[in-house]
Amino acid sequence: MVPFNLRLLNTIKAKRSLLCVGLDMHPDLFYPQTASLDTLKKHAEKVIDATKELAVAYKPNLAFFERWGSKGFKWLEELVRQLKSDSIVIGDAKRGDIGSTAKQYAFSLFSHFNFDAVTLNPFLGSDSITPFSTNPEKGVFLLCKTSNRSANEIQTLETPEGKIFEVIAKLAVQLNHNQNIGLVVGATVPREIETVRKWAPDLPLLIPGIGHQGGNLEKVIKAGYRGGSALINISRSISFAGDLSKAAIHSTALDYVLKMRRFIDES
Amino acid sequence: MVPFNLRLLNTIKAKRSLLCVGLDMHPDLFYPQTASLDTLKKHAEKVIDATKELAVAYKPNLAFFERWGSKGFKWLEELVRQLKSDSIVIGDAKRGDIGSTAKQYAFSLFSHFNFDAVTLNPFLGSDSITPFSTNPEKGVFLLCKTSNRSANEIQTLETPEGKIFEVIAKLAVQLNHNQNIGLVVGATVPREIETVRKWAPDLPLLIPGIGHQGGNLEKVIKAGYRGGSALINISRSISFAGDLSKAAIHSTALDYVLKMRRFIDES
Repeated sequence: MVPFNLRLLNTIKAKRSLLCVGLDMHPDLFYPQTASLDTLKKHAEKVIDATKELAVAYKPNLAFFERWGSKGFKWLEELVRQLKSDSIVIGDAKRGDIGSTAKQYAFSLFSHFNFDAVTLNPFLGSDSITPFSTNPEKGVFLLCKTSNRSANEIQTLETPEGKIFEVIAKLAVQLNHNQNIGLVVGATVPREIETVRKWAPDLPLLIPGIGHQGGNLEKVIKAGYRGGSALINISRSISFAGDLSKAAIHSTALDYVLKMRRFIDES
Repeated sequence: MVPFNLRLLNTIKAKRSLLCVGLDMHPDLFYPQTASLDTLKKHAEKVIDATKELAVAYKPNLAFFERWGSKGFKWLEELVRQLKSDSIVIGDAKRGDIGSTAKQYAFSLFSHFNFDAVTLNPFLGSDSITPFSTNPEKGVFLLCKTSNRSANEIQTLETPEGKIFEVIAKLAVQLNHNQNIGLVVGATVPREIETVRKWAPDLPLLIPGIGHQGGNLEKVIKAGYRGGSALINISRSISFAGDLSKAAIHSTALDYVLKMRRFIDES
């Protein structure tokens, strides 16, 4: 039995990549009209096909499936089955509920959909997290510092125990006795990634916000990468690259991975 | 066009009730064995049938549907259609994501599933909330102070702007320009409900934690009820009352509502 964090590290080293491809199939990004569910399914398959040699992990965000209701969830069931053959699949669910309900979400995400890891919102505290972390083979990434503009309304407020996002980094370390907890830290403020690394030196970081949201890849890797425990999530810039062809998607992903390899090989 | 908060107030006055029935169809609460999806569907119909004269609102928690995957979402689609004829339906989703993704969740919950209101997790700040609050007819209840044991790990931390849950109460007031924002405040600590009322005197409160979780109904109504703007959510104590018969469910719900009426009629 390999704990999730070790499996992730081994996959990063084997693939010489930190790339997590965000599978956010946005219906409005298809010119000239809104895409149908069928168009999106085919496009997701193309993205996977174009990136599977390069990606360590895939991260479908559940919002883009739920917006189609039961048909979207059927698609997600199929998609995870397809991805599971040789990739780590992270369900970007950002769930957070009281203990007895959290158990139902854990059943949904790990047993029904069969994700390898999920993202969780830590606002309800450890009750809402531990139902997800009992199985060491399944990973949990806690939202710590997000990449959106209004993140600072709550996450950077000062408390006697440090800023809220520092409190969460410390909580994550406490909960990591099964070696399966990580943190989500946005790429837009590399200085805050360094702060998180101070409190949680050994936890894997899942870092979104590169590309469309403007994070700088080199700065982010320098701040967050320690011996392999970082995943750089890129969604739109890869999935909707250039003319949306397989070639454009592949070459954009390769370009990112080649930049990542410089850091991986040096360390 | 009636804003959500006014519609809620009008319904409370018309029904002389503060009752929100939590529709959490827990498969493990059926003796002697775990219930099938079909058993749960029938039980949910029984609960609705037994309480529809008494309940102001119903609150299905999405976890109990998602755990069945696409079949569970199909059930939720049917359930909301059935409930919509004469009740307010609150999707207890506790979503919270960055703006462009929040839009997808808003589409899912309001346009696809057709909920009248949703619960949201405010950890990502106002970016993650405003996509849900643009339509005044649709309501948003922000998690403010939850009823679980570990809530205090984050929610009661002191900051220069007050405790985190006070910061959220103040944010909710700021965002309420469409008269459709409310707050979720657990019943287990009535003193904190009073604090929330100080910062948000006019916002509707959705108060879970009565019954199974141990909150005291009278104390909670005294602390939270102001001219009708409170919903008391009761899940397990009603949905799984006595021998699970329609009669047992109805008489338990009636008992709660008669206690509520004393306060409504006095005010």
